[in-house]
Amino acid sequence: MTRWLDDEEQTTWQAYIRMRQRLDSAIATGLTRDGVSTSDYEVLVALSAAGGQLRSKELGAEICWDKSRLSKHLSRMAARGLVDRCQAVDDARGREVRLTEAGRAALHAAAPNHVELVRRLFIDGMTEDEAAALRSLATRVVSEVERTDLL
Amino acid sequence: MTRWLDDEEQTTWQAYIRMRQRLDSAIATGLTRDGVSTSDYEVLVALSAAGGQLRSKELGAEICWDKSRLSKHLSRMAARGLVDRCQAVDDARGREVRLTEAGRAALHAAAPNHVELVRRLFIDGMTEDEAAALRSLATRVVSEVERTDLL
Repeated sequence: MTRWLDDEEQTTWQAYIRMRQRLDSAIATGLTRDGVSTSDYEVLVALSAAGGQLRSKELGAEICWDKSRLSKHLSRMAARGLVDRCQAVDDARGREVRLTEAGRAALHAAAPNHVELVRRLFIDGMTEDEAAALRSLATRVVSEVERTDLL
Repeated sequence: MTRWLDDEEQTTWQAYIRMRQRLDSAIATGLTRDGVSTSDYEVLVALSAAGGQLRSKELGAEICWDKSRLSKHLSRMAARGLVDRCQAVDDARGREVRLTEAGRAALHAAAPNHVELVRRLFIDGMTEDEAAALRSLATRVVSEVERTDLL
């Protein structure tokens, strides 16, 4: 028997979905104006946060992309010179993805407007209670997802 | 001068991004097992909520997709028989998108597991305070986004 959402639960879920759709869309538009897509930006940020280089597998796990999506997108980014890929020295099957100088420059070019937008749309209006609630909710959701076999 | 995020703001934003990535990924995997993609499901839900039919333009605004993404995806869904498209009777330039019987059946087939997953990962563990904070945050973010020129 499906436990459908009651009205209040439905309102909460719809509020989240609506926020996510609108925020994603605005952020994508903002990044595009600075020359990168949201997908490019996610990859650039993850590589930069890891010191400029990651195993392909670890990069996929970090940003939650499946192998096929990651491989296709990295090929496009490599063709634009934003990343390069090489064999991991200590693992014949491992592939390393590396941020290039051009990738770092693209990240630095997009970051200021992106951060301003994140502030304006999301962070600046948030109360401390909302921020604390969001962090505790997010921590629990992430651990619930990691307990499932759905990643 | 860019106002970079301070540590606490950065933690909050990263918590949200991490939740979104993991939740999106788990939900996509769940829906795929029931025969639809997240994009299919968004379209099917929006059409169903509107009584089965919407102007193409209104559908795009509802789910925040640009014209090109919507048009490409609707062509794929139409090829699978999930929607059909027709001229709006009262507007020569308007296109109506309509849920077919097969589209409705696909939605009904995917909905129970989807709702169970949304409960398990997101709704069931949420406190009332978290739900209230999320709703007020989402309402404000949506109105901030709508005040920008980025949709």
